Amino acid sequence: MAKPITPLVRLQKALGSLVQTTEPECFAASFDNARLSFMPEAVVKPAVEADIATVLKLANTYKMPVTVRGAGTSTTGSASPVKGGWVIDLSGWNKVHIDAAAGVAYVQPGVTIASIQAEAEKEGWAYPPDPSSHKWATIGGAIACNAGGMRGAKYGVTRDYVLALEGFLATGEYVRWGADLRKFAAGFNLRDLWIGSEGMLGIITGAALKLLPKPAARRTLLAQFANEDKAITAVQRIFQARLVPSILEFLDRQSIECTVRLLKDKGEGTVAKDGTLRLSKRLSLPAKPVAVLLIEVDGHPAQVKDDYALLQETLKPLTLAVSEATTPEEAELLWSIRRRCSKAMFQMGDSKLNEDVVVPLRSQKELLKYTLQLKRETGLATPTFGHAADGNFHVHLMFQRSDPGQCAAAERGVQALMEKVVALGGAITGEHGIGLAKSVFLHLQHGPAEIAAMQAVKKALDPNGILNPGKLFEPFRVWEHTPVKVHLPWDH
Amino acid sequence: MAKPITPLVRLQKALGSLVQTTEPECFAASFDNARLSFMPEAVVKPAVEADIATVLKLANTYKMPVTVRGAGTSTTGSASPVKGGWVIDLSGWNKVHIDAAAGVAYVQPGVTIASIQAEAEKEGWAYPPDPSSHKWATIGGAIACNAGGMRGAKYGVTRDYVLALEGFLATGEYVRWGADLRKFAAGFNLRDLWIGSEGMLGIITGAALKLLPKPAARRTLLAQFANEDKAITAVQRIFQARLVPSILEFLDRQSIECTVRLLKDKGEGTVAKDGTLRLSKRLSLPAKPVAVLLIEVDGHPAQVKDDYALLQETLKPLTLAVSEATTPEEAELLWSIRRRCSKAMFQMGDSKLNEDVVVPLRSQKELLKYTLQLKRETGLATPTFGHAADGNFHVHLMFQRSDPGQCAAAERGVQALMEKVVALGGAITGEHGIGLAKSVFLHLQHGPAEIAAMQAVKKALDPNGILNPGKLFEPFRVWEHTPVKVHLPWDH
Repeated sequence: MAKPITPLVRLQKALGSLVQTTEPECFAASFDNARLSFMPEAVVKPAVEADIATVLKLANTYKMPVTVRGAGTSTTGSASPVKGGWVIDLSGWNKVHIDAAAGVAYVQPGVTIASIQAEAEKEGWAYPPDPSSHKWATIGGAIACNAGGMRGAKYGVTRDYVLALEGFLATGEYVRWGADLRKFAAGFNLRDLWIGSEGMLGIITGAALKLLPKPAARRTLLAQFANEDKAITAVQRIFQARLVPSILEFLDRQSIECTVRLLKDKGEGTVAKDGTLRLSKRLSLPAKPVAVLLIEVDGHPAQVKDDYALLQETLKPLTLAVSEATTPEEAELLWSIRRRCSKAMFQMGDSKLNEDVVVPLRSQKELLKYTLQLKRETGLATPTFGHAADGNFHVHLMFQRSDPGQCAAAERGVQALMEKVVALGGAITGEHGIGLAKSVFLHLQHGPAEIAAMQAVKKALDPNGILNPGKLFEPFRVWEHTPVKVHLPWDH
Repeated sequence: MAKPITPLVRLQKALGSLVQTTEPECFAASFDNARLSFMPEAVVKPAVEADIATVLKLANTYKMPVTVRGAGTSTTGSASPVKGGWVIDLSGWNKVHIDAAAGVAYVQPGVTIASIQAEAEKEGWAYPPDPSSHKWATIGGAIACNAGGMRGAKYGVTRDYVLALEGFLATGEYVRWGADLRKFAAGFNLRDLWIGSEGMLGIITGAALKLLPKPAARRTLLAQFANEDKAITAVQRIFQARLVPSILEFLDRQSIECTVRLLKDKGEGTVAKDGTLRLSKRLSLPAKPVAVLLIEVDGHPAQVKDDYALLQETLKPLTLAVSEATTPEEAELLWSIRRRCSKAMFQMGDSKLNEDVVVPLRSQKELLKYTLQLKRETGLATPTFGHAADGNFHVHLMFQRSDPGQCAAAERGVQALMEKVVALGGAITGEHGIGLAKSVFLHLQHGPAEIAAMQAVKKALDPNGILNPGKLFEPFRVWEHTPVKVHLPWDH
């Protein structure tokens, strides 16, 4: 008997060995960093652009879900094929070319942010956006969720560097939005509509990115404060002084406490009798947990010198201690505290809800006070760090997945947190996007008219709803799903 | 007999004296700086936001065109009610509030860009975008066309400063896009879709704008070159040196020639025997026309000093002369040359087509060569100036409207120019938008799939097509229309 002509058979006929259907291949494409696994029917690794048009044509014919993925570093499940169907894997599309004369990077979607940065720096240029996943995260995904990072307040986010996008409409037509130019005002701006649309409005196959000259100098320090309130007072005074640090990273006492414990457990540094952890000649962290600001200023050497002096003067009345990094090794030591914090907090629960909320400067103190209230009310740890200059805080709710009481508390906690953030004039996500993880909260941020307008745009550009269905608008209760246990390249 | 219940009568019943219908009132709202007059039936000056909802509700019921205007400085006719109907005049909505702590400006759409800049500067902040119309142009219009200006290459355009927009969908619902936050990733980005959509996708009633600290120092110079090619070589070398001037304004020989003639005619400065125009101790312009770069560097004083030195070294092998502005009066003298150029070129024709095209750095020399070819081929003057750092050149075709031969030549010329610009990898508009004036060229920039996608978005958000109809997608042949003779506030 002849094999029935299913959509998959037609896809295989059209694209041959570019279509993968084995269990391990489909499993690997079934989740992202949120580790929520939904098996696709097939994974396509396109060789040329026409292959993407072929997939889209068939997908429209059969109303087959199509989800695009790069490295799968998304924390929201936005690259998870929650409705099954076909995954287009563009991680192999990883070319980058720097136009050194004009300061423009031409990139394919699968190239990592770190590669773009490295190539740009070879030519004296810089690509500033730096999500913490930059070694693995691809630019396609960064554009799809408008990724941010630590340098947002001075240097903006991914959106601020995208000059042009090319790729495919859901309906399969090739399009180009914007141009490799620093000004463009011809027609509606669908470039910026695509940016941050989480793969639901089109498929990006290339981008032109604006580069900036590499800063000539930078200087880094770590300032310790008795509590969160004092640290945020320092943030406010930094704004008052009209200083624009390239990085102004905040860590609360809970974050520092678990990081110090991790470092002690690993035998890093030496522990004094009073419990002080001595990490280097200049840097020690006291036994009693402190809140921390990690601050970098960059630019012309004279500006860095002046900014640094003004910064010290501004911090002086507020800090317990200030440690400067005078060598790359010391700088690395400072950054390692920030980096290890994400891992360290698993001491306080085997699972976390990581919410990248944003609040205005005027509400930062209240948000941080609220994380402590949440800790008391839920009985869960709520370690919080983030990018204080743009008010983008990562509030974590730590819980044991095997404990139904803690699961329920985490669920209640995240709901209450999101309501609080919106009441404070904030945003439920600053740089991760909505994906699956925040879909239940979208209505807190946007009223019915706003959501209806977004859905009308979706319908207009993807009439069959094939691109990344199930995201953003369909409520998904992430805490009811058990993540798969896998070791991913970025797991420490 | 009772007055028939026309749409206008219903509008008047609902909004009373906010509705103006006299001939002078309607005439004043019938055109913008493109001076293409189309009489509306009524002009509404809303007192509160609900008035706008009322207009939109009635307009949807009767499929009545609604065109929003501020000061009417648009050069493309985008504020002209080409299909009649009702004009909403928001020029009276001109409040601005600076949050000095956070560096955010909260503005109503009718406030001028200059007012925002002045209010921000009082608090040590700056709003950098500076279209030349900034004294009159309102922020609503600037957002609607994503206005640029001279500082685009270093400081970006209007879009780069808009954090949040609020206003009305065409269907009359109040919405808010983005927030007064420096990061926001919740849902599709309709904020940036509204920006640059020329009043066709929604009505803006308020915006939150990001501010930057005011630069501590700046330095300005004027460099003269034997020809355009040498000036653009200098632009390329400035990029090569990784210098990012805050302004890098180019004027070609035709622009300088007519400006010098105007200054001589007005008796400004003194004319030497050899025809040299001496404007001050440091600044003279030779009889033989030169191409010019007007350059400003800004930032920390030490950076300005270093940048200036590197700039001089970079320019030295290429220039005929360099004049520095050492006092505000000298700086004003340099800028006045640029400013008076727009007026001066009317010596070469009583009418102009002003095209704000953009080309990549690699194509700048070829574009400028082409303006001279165009001059030969059309017999019309083609003075060109613009923002060299972002490749945004204003190419003018000067003609006598009473001369049918010149009108035809201008029409042919603009068509050929637009084709050339696109062939060079450029854009048909960098900062003015499409409006009426460039609608016939939209298909050169965008393919059918791209235009269809834009139209699908328009249909999704404005199902009755009431907002600013007749713009962008409907070809309008601007040279077939005689502008009205009026004196506008910004006419010199």
